[in-house]
Amino acid sequence: MDPSPNPFNRDCPTRQLLDRIGDQWTVLIVGALAEGPLRFTEVGKRVDGISQKVLTQTLRSLVRDGLLTRTAYPVIPPRVEYALTPLGRDLAEPLDMLDRWARGHMAEVERARDAYDRENTSVSA
Amino acid sequence: MDPSPNPFNRDCPTRQLLDRIGDQWTVLIVGALAEGPLRFTEVGKRVDGISQKVLTQTLRSLVRDGLLTRTAYPVIPPRVEYALTPLGRDLAEPLDMLDRWARGHMAEVERARDAYDRENTSVSA
Repeated sequence: MDPSPNPFNRDCPTRQLLDRIGDQWTVLIVGALAEGPLRFTEVGKRVDGISQKVLTQTLRSLVRDGLLTRTAYPVIPPRVEYALTPLGRDLAEPLDMLDRWARGHMAEVERARDAYDRENTSVSA
Repeated sequence: MDPSPNPFNRDCPTRQLLDRIGDQWTVLIVGALAEGPLRFTEVGKRVDGISQKVLTQTLRSLVRDGLLTRTAYPVIPPRVEYALTPLGRDLAEPLDMLDRWARGHMAEVERARDAYDRENTSVSA
């Protein structure tokens, strides 16, 4: 039995944590909150195209994981704000690297896909 | 229209790329290959619990994206080896940070979950 956390083992809880933190919605929500606290609707606007349901579920999971705080202000209309915890701010750094990698290498990936698709078409033709 | 790649926009191709590179299987497969080329069955052994189907699909996607090479050796029995391309090696670094983050903060996340679950139980009790 491996005593240290290792996501290569299917039963290690780090496997599921890796799945959570690498999730596109996590990357985008944590990225949006890295600039400061946001209200529920503001997060939804920043993360274009996320459904209300997925936004609600992802925010709840991130609060439960200790990455975000959820603060409800007793005002009318109700105001709920989300903010990164220190643990969430710590995660923001590797996630930002992932975001920047995707932005910085999109053109290379698209060229690779075009080459692959051309080759596979010519083989089957 | 935003001229620069931005995964916060739902129609930007970086959104889908972010989803691909943050995927747990991508993180683990690229991590396994960071140590050197591996045969199909060896990758499957390193990434404990991955199904044959998901392994096949993920490897094919990573080859198409230009992150891996697939080399078939004309021997009997057939031998197929996967290796990181320079682009894949470049991605290995941020993915390794994600892996290490999950290993290094699992205990904190578990404490946060326990606290959240206790609080939610006491509220509904």
